[in-house]
Amino acid sequence: MCQLLGMNCNTPTDATFSFTGFTQRGGRTADHVDGWGVAFFEGAGLRHFVDHLPAAESPVAELIRKYPIKSCNVIAHIRKATQGAVNLQNCHPFVRELWGRYWVFAHNGNLENYAPRLHANFHPVGTTDSERAFCWLMQELAKSHASVPSVEELTITLRELVPQISRHGTFNFLLSNGEALWAHASTHLFYLERGFPFASAELADEDLTVDFAAQTSPADRVTVVVTAPLTKNETWTAFQPHELIAFVDGRAIRA
Amino acid sequence: MCQLLGMNCNTPTDATFSFTGFTQRGGRTADHVDGWGVAFFEGAGLRHFVDHLPAAESPVAELIRKYPIKSCNVIAHIRKATQGAVNLQNCHPFVRELWGRYWVFAHNGNLENYAPRLHANFHPVGTTDSERAFCWLMQELAKSHASVPSVEELTITLRELVPQISRHGTFNFLLSNGEALWAHASTHLFYLERGFPFASAELADEDLTVDFAAQTSPADRVTVVVTAPLTKNETWTAFQPHELIAFVDGRAIRA
Repeated sequence: MCQLLGMNCNTPTDATFSFTGFTQRGGRTADHVDGWGVAFFEGAGLRHFVDHLPAAESPVAELIRKYPIKSCNVIAHIRKATQGAVNLQNCHPFVRELWGRYWVFAHNGNLENYAPRLHANFHPVGTTDSERAFCWLMQELAKSHASVPSVEELTITLRELVPQISRHGTFNFLLSNGEALWAHASTHLFYLERGFPFASAELADEDLTVDFAAQTSPADRVTVVVTAPLTKNETWTAFQPHELIAFVDGRAIRA
Repeated sequence: MCQLLGMNCNTPTDATFSFTGFTQRGGRTADHVDGWGVAFFEGAGLRHFVDHLPAAESPVAELIRKYPIKSCNVIAHIRKATQGAVNLQNCHPFVRELWGRYWVFAHNGNLENYAPRLHANFHPVGTTDSERAFCWLMQELAKSHASVPSVEELTITLRELVPQISRHGTFNFLLSNGEALWAHASTHLFYLERGFPFASAELADEDLTVDFAAQTSPADRVTVVVTAPLTKNETWTAFQPHELIAFVDGRAIRA
């Protein structure tokens, strides 16, 4: 299995605090050592980093822990391989372009005997069940809408498509097009909204505390989505089984 | 205008020496300060780094100058904006997936009034003439072949397609699918094949010399393609106007 980390904000925010705790699980506090990756949207643009080294040891992960990249939509993943070899093309998150936007996807879980019909314009480069699922989702989204639809419309379409994948196994995933972050839980996924008044947060995986009050303005709003809570002193909300939530501007859209 | 750097080898080789000289032109020895990017194939997988900061100052470029990433196909670019704002989505190289492979593209030049009909599955995310040209090339390659063709067939198709773009202006470009590196010159492009016996090379843009004989084995073969020669003591071959060359395993395929 793997672990997921997502962030969605109303103001570009750096993810160094969450990323620092999260990447400890890539070899130090947990054994997700089969590569890692992270993608940061900056407007329509994207920074995408993947590495087959354990996140706790990777020089690229070290750079990201130190270099504050500000983003409104971040997806990170640390891998413990179930299907597919340990190599770069099997590292999440995966990226594709659709309707002149980048789409980023990362998956935690295992889809058994999952061989969807990929007859259109999205094909996996690697050999994971996860990239197959992403390509199928992109294919079906492309068929369902002629151009980029609203977040609400996309959420409705995803609610129709996702059960067709999740019946094959565990399908916890994060998806973003830079405008929203969609998160779906089959089993384990938690989220936390941080807003005014901001307080201190204490990492569960490393001896590190940050006082967000000193780094934020009252209008800031940040949601963090993760496989297992990252902090010890905050209240994380568990996703219900098969719940799909869209996050926009740091807030859950529950419509 | 911008500058291009490409590398194609028969053995995964790190590009730190060439990249170090090249990135000096991003703010130190030349004024290509409007962002930069580099992509390294590792097998079918890809590491893709872009930054809107000048390459000579970027912390990500600093990482790559120090962290030897070994690859058989590398494309790098430093930008001096002609069309499109200075932001991440306008940084080269651009990446798309076709036939279950990643394709990487970077351009030097300026295409005037270039608005190709993009009616299929590749659309630009940013606003450069370059990304439009790449999307049109991908669209037309996808129409010309049902699945990934041989390097020779792709070269023939590219020779048909490229003049339809280059009549709009300067179109020096590098393209790779991880199997070959295609380079096309409208104006300035040089290449250099390094093979046994390897010698020392001295950077033109920084006081740095490397003895490749100490780092290579006799079977290694590396070709470097660049807008302006990177070293002072080697003989670089200029591309002829409108010449398109495919490089495979560190060697020019002139068929």
